[in-house]
Parts: sequence; C-alpha cells; structure tokens
Amino acid sequence: MNEQFNQAHYDIKQQITHYEHDLDHFWTTLTGAVVLIMQLGFAFLEGGCVRYRNIQSIIIKVYANTAISIIMMWIVGYGLMMGKTNDSQFNGISGFSGFRFKDHPESYADFVFNTALAAAANSIVSGGAAERMSIPGYIALSVLFSGFIYPICIHWAYKGWLYDLGYHDFAGSGAIHLTAGIGALVVTFMLRPRTNRFNPQFESQFKPSNTTFICLSCLTLYMAWMCFNSGSTLALSDGSVFTVGNSIANTMVGGASGGLFVFFYHYFTNRNTDSRFSLVMVCNGNLAGLVAVTGSNDEIEQWAAFVIGIIGGIIYVLVAKILHKLQIDDPVDAIPIHAGCGLAGAMCPGWFDRRRGIYYEWGAYQWGVQVLGCVCFVAWSVAWHYVACKILERLNLLRVHNRIEMEGLDPTICGGHAFFYEPVREQEMKEPYS
Amino acid sequence: MNEQFNQAHYDIKQQITHYEHDLDHFWTTLTGAVVLIMQLGFAFLEGGCVRYRNIQSIIIKVYANTAISIIMMWIVGYGLMMGKTNDSQFNGISGFSGFRFKDHPESYADFVFNTALAAAANSIVSGGAAERMSIPGYIALSVLFSGFIYPICIHWAYKGWLYDLGYHDFAGSGAIHLTAGIGALVVTFMLRPRTNRFNPQFESQFKPSNTTFICLSCLTLYMAWMCFNSGSTLALSDGSVFTVGNSIANTMVGGASGGLFVFFYHYFTNRNTDSRFSLVMVCNGNLAGLVAVTGSNDEIEQWAAFVIGIIGGIIYVLVAKILHKLQIDDPVDAIPIHAGCGLAGAMCPGWFDRRRGIYYEWGAYQWGVQVLGCVCFVAWSVAWHYVACKILERLNLLRVHNRIEMEGLDPTICGGHAFFYEPVREQEMKEPYS
Amino acid sequence: MNEQFNQAHYDIKQQITHYEHDLDHFWTTLTGAVVLIMQLGFAFLEGGCVRYRNIQSIIIKVYANTAISIIMMWIVGYGLMMGKTNDSQFNGISGFSGFRFKDHPESYADFVFNTALAAAANSIVSGGAAERMSIPGYIALSVLFSGFIYPICIHWAYKGWLYDLGYHDFAGSGAIHLTAGIGALVVTFMLRPRTNRFNPQFESQFKPSNTTFICLSCLTLYMAWMCFNSGSTLALSDGSVFTVGNSIANTMVGGASGGLFVFFYHYFTNRNTDSRFSLVMVCNGNLAGLVAVTGSNDEIEQWAAFVIGIIGGIIYVLVAKILHKLQIDDPVDAIPIHAGCGLAGAMCPGWFDRRRGIYYEWGAYQWGVQVLGCVCFVAWSVAWHYVACKILERLNLLRVHNRIEMEGLDPTICGGHAFFYEPVREQEMKEPYS
Repeated sequence: MNEQFNQAHYDIKQQITHYEHDLDHFWTTLTGAVVLIMQLGFAFLEGGCVRYRNIQSIIIKVYANTAISIIMMWIVGYGLMMGKTNDSQFNGISGFSGFRFKDHPESYADFVFNTALAAAANSIVSGGAAERMSIPGYIALSVLFSGFIYPICIHWAYKGWLYDLGYHDFAGSGAIHLTAGIGALVVTFMLRPRTNRFNPQFESQFKPSNTTFICLSCLTLYMAWMCFNSGSTLALSDGSVFTVGNSIANTMVGGASGGLFVFFYHYFTNRNTDSRFSLVMVCNGNLAGLVAVTGSNDEIEQWAAFVIGIIGGIIYVLVAKILHKLQIDDPVDAIPIHAGCGLAGAMCPGWFDRRRGIYYEWGAYQWGVQVLGCVCFVAWSVAWHYVACKILERLNLLRVHNRIEMEGLDPTICGGHAFFYEPVREQEMKEPYS
Repeated sequence: MNEQFNQAHYDIKQQITHYEHDLDHFWTTLTGAVVLIMQLGFAFLEGGCVRYRNIQSIIIKVYANTAISIIMMWIVGYGLMMGKTNDSQFNGISGFSGFRFKDHPESYADFVFNTALAAAANSIVSGGAAERMSIPGYIALSVLFSGFIYPICIHWAYKGWLYDLGYHDFAGSGAIHLTAGIGALVVTFMLRPRTNRFNPQFESQFKPSNTTFICLSCLTLYMAWMCFNSGSTLALSDGSVFTVGNSIANTMVGGASGGLFVFFYHYFTNRNTDSRFSLVMVCNGNLAGLVAVTGSNDEIEQWAAFVIGIIGGIIYVLVAKILHKLQIDDPVDAIPIHAGCGLAGAMCPGWFDRRRGIYYEWGAYQWGVQVLGCVCFVAWSVAWHYVACKILERLNLLRVHNRIEMEGLDPTICGGHAFFYEPVREQEMKEPYS
Repeated sequence: MNEQFNQAHYDIKQQITHYEHDLDHFWTTLTGAVVLIMQLGFAFLEGGCVRYRNIQSIIIKVYANTAISIIMMWIVGYGLMMGKTNDSQFNGISGFSGFRFKDHPESYADFVFNTALAAAANSIVSGGAAERMSIPGYIALSVLFSGFIYPICIHWAYKGWLYDLGYHDFAGSGAIHLTAGIGALVVTFMLRPRTNRFNPQFESQFKPSNTTFICLSCLTLYMAWMCFNSGSTLALSDGSVFTVGNSIANTMVGGASGGLFVFFYHYFTNRNTDSRFSLVMVCNGNLAGLVAVTGSNDEIEQWAAFVIGIIGGIIYVLVAKILHKLQIDDPVDAIPIHAGCGLAGAMCPGWFDRRRGIYYEWGAYQWGVQVLGCVCFVAWSVAWHYVACKILERLNLLRVHNRIEMEGLDPTICGGHAFFYEPVREQEMKEPYS
C-alpha cells in the first residue's frame, strides 16, 4: 500500500510539473510570436519619419534585417547567446543551427522568443541608416549585428559574467535598447548628416512625412511591448503569472506617463506656435517611457513606473536637443529613445527595484553593476560598429552616391516611389486592348 | 499513513488550485494586453472618417486619451471601479494608485484588463469631438470620463447595487458602449455641427476621407473584440474555457451578420447609384453587430448571435438616419453604433440568454433589470457630460475658433497636415550642402 | 483506506485531465481569434497590388468574404468539414448551424479555429478576382467556396478517406493553400486579363500602387501565420507545446529564407536597373516561404525549414514567370504563392518529415499519398470553380462592364476613390454656414 501510494503521489507530482512546463514554454513561444509584429512597428515608424523619396528604401532595410536576424540567429546567434557558457563566461558554445534542439525541445520556445527580440534590436539600428546608407552596406552590418554583436551582449547579461555579478535588466533596457541605440548612434555619426539637413532653407522638408504611419507604429509597438516585457519571465507557473501582470501594468503606466509628459512639455514650449499639439511627440514620448521601463518592470511599484516613464520623457527631450545642436542627424530619433532612455532604464533596477534598489535601502551595489554593464555594452557596440562602418566606407558601401540621395533611394534603386495614385488617362480610355 | 495521505492529498489539491489561478490570471492579463490594440482601431477609424485637414487632430485626441485613461485608472479609476464596494454600493473604496497591489498580486491582471477597456471606452467618446472640439477641452473631458464617469458605471454593473439586482452585461454593451456612446451624443450635441456640414453645396466634402483607414481599423477591432468579449470571463479554468469558446464564436457570427446585413441593405437602397457597394457600410455594420452582441455573448446560442448582429445592423441604419434628420453631426457614427447598438445589446441578456431570457421562458425580470441599468447609465452619462461641456463652453474650451475649424486643426494647431509627399525640387538639386 | 485512496487518486487524475483540456481548447480558440487578423493582411495585400481606381472594390471583396465565410461555416461548412464522417468518408454529417454545440462545448474552439482558416482561404481566391470581377459574382462564388468547395477538401484531409490513407498536411499547404490558389487560377483564367494589361504602352501602370500596404500586410500575415501553423496542433498539453515551439521556429525560418532568397534573386537579375532592390519581392518571397513550410512545420528540422523556404522562393519566381509568359493575369500573385508553393509544401511531409519522409528513409509511400491528395484537391477545385464561373458568365455576373473596368470599380460602383485629400477651397472659407 505504502509503495503504491508513493508511486501514485510521485506520478501526479510529475504530471503537474509537466503542466507547469507546458504553461511556461507556451508563454515564451506565444510572446515570441507576438513580438514579431514589432517589425511592423519599426517599418512604419521609420517609413513615416523619412521623406517620400525614401520610404521604400527604409522599409526594405527593416524587412531585410528581420529575415536576416532570423537566419543569423538560427545559424550562429542563438548558440552564442543562449548556449552553454564557455569558461570565460564570454559567449555560449552550444545550440548552433538548431543542433540537438530535438533532444531539448524546450529550446524551441527560447529560440522563438530570443529571435523575435533580436529582430527588434536589429531594426533599432536601421533608424540611423535612414535616407542615406547603402542597402548592401546595411545588410552586411545587419549580418554582423544579429550574428555576433548583439548575441554576445545578451549572453553577458543573461548567462555570462555580468549575470554572475548580479546584473539585472529584466527585458533589456541596457542589453537590448542601449546596445542597439548606440549602434544607431555610431552609424549615424559615421554616415554624417543627410544633405541639406541643417541648411535652414530646406529644414522644413525633413519633418516626418507621414504621422499616421508613426501612430500606427507606436500603438502596435505599445501592445507588443507588453508581450515583450512580460514574456521575459519565460514562465507563467508558480506565481510567475503575477510578475507577468505586474510587468504589463508597469509597462502600460510607464508608456503612458512618458507620452503625456512629452506631449505637455511640447505644448508648453510651443504654445504660441501652430504646432502646439504634436502627434509625433506623444508617440515618441510613449516609446521613450516604454524603453525606460523595460529594464525594471518586473520588480517595481506602479508609482515607480510612472516616474520612470517621465524620466524617459525628459531624457528623450534632452538628448534629442543635444544631438540637434551637435548636428548629428538621426532621422527617426533612435538615439534619444533607444540609447538615451535605454541607458536610463538600465539604471532603474539599481534605483527602484523592490529587492535591489537604493530607494529600498539595498545599497548601491546593484547600481554599480548596472553601470558596469552599460559601460561594457557601449564599448562593445561602439567598437564593432565603428570597425564595421570603417570597412564599409573603404568598400564604398557606407553611403549612397550623392545623386541617389538627392533624388531619393526609392526612384533610383528601389523601383519607384512607395505609392502612387494615377488617375485614368484619356488615351487609355480610347485604346482598350484586352 | 492516513495523515501522510491526507497531507499529500491536500498539497496536490492546493497545487492544482494554484495552476487554476495561474491560468485565470494569465488569461485576464493577456486579453487586457491585446485589447490595447483597439486604440489603433479607434485612431484609424476616426482618422479615416474626418477630412484631411483634421486627421492628426483626432488621432492626437485618441492617443492622448489612451495615455490619460491609463494614468487616471491607476490613480483613481480602478479604485472607484473595482475596489471594495462602499455601503451604498455606489462606488469602490480601495485599490487607488496601486495601493496594496503587491499584497494582492491578482489585482495586476484585473487592472490591466479593466484599464484597456477604459481606454477603449474613452476613445468612443472622442468620436463626437472630431473636427471641431478644442484639444485641451477634450483632454479635460477625458480626465473626467476615465477617472470618474466611466468607473462608477462599471462599479454599478459588475460589483455594486445593479449587480446585486442581477444585472447581466457580459462584456459591456450597456455599461461600456452605451455609457460612452451617450457621452459622444452629448458632446456632439453641445458642440453643434461642423460648419457647412448640412450645407448642400459642401455636403460631399464630409464623406470619410480614407476608407482604407476604416478597414484597417475595423478588422483590427474585430480581432481585438474577440479578446475583449472572451476576456470578460476573467477565467479559463474549470470549464470557463468553454464560455470563452462560445463567446468568441458568437462574437464572430454577430459581427459577420451585422456587416452583411448593412452591406446588403445599403446595396438595395442604392442599387441604381454609383455607390451601391460600400466598404464603409460593411465596416460599420460589422461594428454594429459586435457592439450588439457584446452584452450577451456568453450565454446565447449562435443563432441568437446571428439575429442580434442583424438587430445591431438595423439599429445602426435607423439611428444614423434619425440623427441626420435632426442635423446632429456625428462624424464617425459613434452614436448609432455605440449608443444605439449598445442599448440594444444591453437588452439581449433579457431576451436571448439561455439562463435568463424571455425566449427561454425565464420571464421578464431580467429584461426589467437591464432596462433599469440602461436608464441609469444614460442619466449618469448625460448629466456629467452636459455639466462638463457647459463648463468647458464657459471657459471657451469647447469648440475651436471658427478660423481654426475652417482651415483645419492640423495646419493651425497640430504642426501641419498628417502626411505630405513632396517631390524633389529643382533648387534643392542645385544647392547640395552637407 | 484503500478505497478512499483510489477515489482521491481518481479525482485528481480527472481534475488534471480537465486542465489538460482547458489548456488545449484555450490554445485552439486563441489561435483562431488571432488568425482572423489575417483578413487585414489579405485586404491590404490586395489593396496595395491593384491600381488606385480599384482599391475599395478589392477590399470590399475581402471584407465581404470574411463575413460570408463565417456565416456559411456556421450554417453548413463546419458540419461538412468537421462533422462525423459519413460512410463514404467524403463529408461530415453533423454539427450544422451550431446544432448540439452546447452539449459538446469543445466544438466552439474547433469552430473558431476552422472558421478563421476558412476566411483566410476564401480571401486567397479573391486575389484572382481583382480589378475586373463583378462584386455580386464574387459574393456568389464566395458562398459556394466557403460553404461547400473548401469544407469538403478539409474533411478529406483531416477526417475522411485521405486522412485514413495517412495524408499529412499539418497546417494545410495542400488542403488550404493549393485548393484556394487553384480557385484563384481558375477565376483568373476565366476572367481573362485586365484590359491593357499586356499592352506594352500601359504595362507600367499595373505595378502595385502601394508597397507600404503590401508591407503592412505581409508583416501582419507573418505574425498571424505563426499562430495559424502552431494552432494546428489543437493542443498544448502533454508535450504538444514542444510541437508548437518547433512549428513556430520553423515558420519563422521558412518565411525568412523565402524572403531573402527572392530578394537576392531579384537583386542579381536586376542589379543594373533602378529597381534592383524590391520591397514587393522580399514580401512575396516571405509569403512563398510561409506557404511552403505550412504543410510540414510540425515534424521537420530547422535546416529543412530553411531549405523549404528557398524551394518556396524558387517556385514563386518560376511560376510567376510562366504565368506572365502565358498572359494569365494574376494581379496579386496569388497563383504562384498559394497554388505553386502550396503544392510544393504539400509534398514536403513526404520528403522532410522526421517520421515519414524519404530523406529519413521512410520510403516513398507518404509522398505518394501527398501527391494523390493534391491531385484530388486540384481536380475538385478546378471542377467547381469552372462550373461556377461558367454559370456566372452566363448570368453576366462574371466580369464587370468594360466602361466600369476602364474607369475603375471604385468611382463607378463603390461610391468614389478609396481616399482623397481635398485642400480647403476659397469659396468654402467665404461661406461659413453652421
């Protein structure tokens, strides 16, 4: 009897553990799938920010880097990122090209989630490339980023030496947004501004050409971001669902406070002009808040999410102003949003985390580790992007020819404008031919 | 042995109950996150209905009210709505500003779901504000709506006195759509029609300027609505998943029958004109059916969903006609769809509910309660919206200046048109300047 | 004691089985709901491919067929498709009009999933109808397709005689995409080309008018496709979640390799022209890869998904070229993508399936069954679409009048162009009238 009882008890425990795992892998896979819709968000964000003549070209870059990220993650990136860490804890060394996934079927969920995030990170870099970077050059950079630069940072933060030091960056303000945003900065810097960008005579031309694209993008990103952040639990069972709920609630609040702050700030500084209300500003503020809250949304209270959203908004406004002063031409504001707010967001676990932060009297150790992590991400990202851009420049693959830039990449190398609406021509009516 | 057995049995029961809760909170959180994409739907629905000169302005209103709803729900709305009911069962009195959420982590899921719904409800009101309401005025109204007017109605219906009477409104045809739709009616009425709206010479100008935006919107809403409706179970476990399935199946069918009815009705009444097929009509009919089936989709059969969709379609067509006769100018048809079909949908549990309805011989008590509820929602919504509009009018924050309206809000206060496609100018080619 | 123990053990086993079912039905319902967003994808894919004058008309077709599919599936299609098979194993004979669903509440999940798929399949056919098919004619065809042609094929493949032979087509490369793509082929063929399509003077007019619509569509479809494919497990519990993960990972990879292949192929064949980079090509290649990997993504390895994506890309390029040579005018490339890659995808379980395929030395039986299935789908689809088109031709409901086609369906029968952006007119400013 006793034995029978123990056996039954064990069996049931096992079965329950199976469901636990089913639920967790399901959650990771589902959020990974939903996060892929962020590529739509990035494509339209960047498409809406550039001039009519370059809409297709930038969307091509985002679409291509989506596909490239997936393939590169499969071949090499996932192994470097999530494989068993090597002795130096610098990179992973297993799981390349789906090797032995079938023996560890839980790897699929992990692969799907991390690959969707990698595609999003890669699209952040494309922001710096808008309107003047060569498409083959960008493709080469994208291969390097998704196959090497990015996976290594993720390995440090979530499996390697930095993780061992206690680095905490829940959904990746530092490891993802800062790394990618700094990539955009280097690319932007190396490319130099778009022709006529700071020529006062033409400045008005460089306003975003389609604000509805930007709105479409940001509301899509807002929704997907809640899955991006909460999916980072990689689990639902055993109370993780509460972290998921907390994380989504914080993401909602942080995004909203960032959006409102920038919206009102813009209103007060422009209240006597004809642009006192700005759709683009509420959108960008929303993104700024979301990036800022990404690193810490698992273990903060909602008031902290509110504050962090506003911090994100302030950083966005400040960094955008500084870049404009320095004549660094970032067509889609990728640098203030992802690098600026990413850095701020990576500090937040050191400040506001209930179980780690200074505010809760846990001392400054956590903050120190966060700073160390960010310094490493920045150095790593700057170094590789700089080298890559230098090589591309040598190969004449960095910036398109001036004639192409002036006429626009769409009509010169992408087969025509992104859309056109031809009326019926008289002649056509006369010559039907079936 | 016996004791050991009892302990093990108890442990496992507990564990299973935990998974039950994991699953339920997960479902509530997930549907809440997905429902936020409805804001994209409302932004493009309204952006597509207005004239080119006002597209940004209305999207700004929707975007701002999204962020405002989230912040107001966090500060005060959620507490009024879902807090412990006070003695009078009029409003909730706990859970403000996330207070003690961390001790009741199941509150996060509930907060996320209800906040996403509140944002949607708030956007419904914005429909009435299109093309002529002052943006600061609308923002003030939005604060009042999401922080006070709306949460109180929800409290009545799902926790308070009305709930105690047996009021049943599954996903909120009455408490949500009717309350908000009546808000849109009062705003529309107080604002008076857009200039030239009923001037025959200019009437054609007021056709929706972008039907593809409307289609984008409605198909997004259709998908999100299935989560909106089925998420209202707040549970998956213990058979709730069947209610979820039933609810989604009914939502699909009700939306489809509403869309087809209005599409064919429009065809038959316009069959000799050049507008015999109408994309906008199939979209609006679809929404009408969805609103109508929202109140009762948990406990009706599919044939009833089909019938209710058609009822929604009929109400939409009728109310739109009456409003046009009365020269009440509702640019986005928010009143017929949300107020009209919302009222009809709130009646349906009294008629078609398998466990409550007249059709199934349960008598008219349920219907009586539904009518009582709707009278209260209407009275509450009319009173507060009227007072708010009167105050805004006094403060000159209700309607924009006539010059702004005539030129459009976009170029005069929102920084320019929503999009523009400038060709390359000759001069620009001559003066490159990097 | 023993009895008590057995009872408790049994109870718990039961309860666990319930959760298993909860999880499985939940998954089926959720993926069904998400798959409905594919209608947005098809609407914008086709809207972006046609000329300005026909955008509304094709979106109306997709929207109408969405609603019609849902209603027809409810009335008759679901019963034919998923009802108890009759003796001949030709069609189902129960479950019509939701009959007895309430006694078998698991039917709702199944209904939702299959109905969303049916709507998607129906939209594939609409591709062939673009720019010249009569709307009433298309509606009639849509009733026939979703109520009869399509459900029968699905019954064969997943419940009937073909299933008994061992036919395996995980998410429907053959039963869904091939059947629908062949429908598009027959419709395209019977309609004959659009006027002036192959007149060299006007050929340039027939380029897709809006590539951003196409990108919006394809990224939406990419995300939804992962739910489409993985939802076909109809289960999460008991390890199915691993199949889900594998399926999504393969779908990601297959879509990406297809997109990249066609993108690079297009580059190499056009590298000296001004259209060397093409957004439309990376989009179509992506879809081609997705269709190709749909049939086998449950049981293949990732390298196979990569290869299959490329096979899809090759087939797409080849078939599109052949159709152009034969002057078969397929405005949205529905035939190469869905019929061509659908056929290839239906072969793949015979080649690459770990538990069935030739590559894994399981012999050619499986491949034989796959070929047999495809022959039957093609024959069935050709026969009924041909008969339907012939009857519609007789009734003069096949092709619109030449005048309507030349001016465009939008201004002549759909109430005007899809969008228009009128500036403020002087006169209007002079005559305000409120």
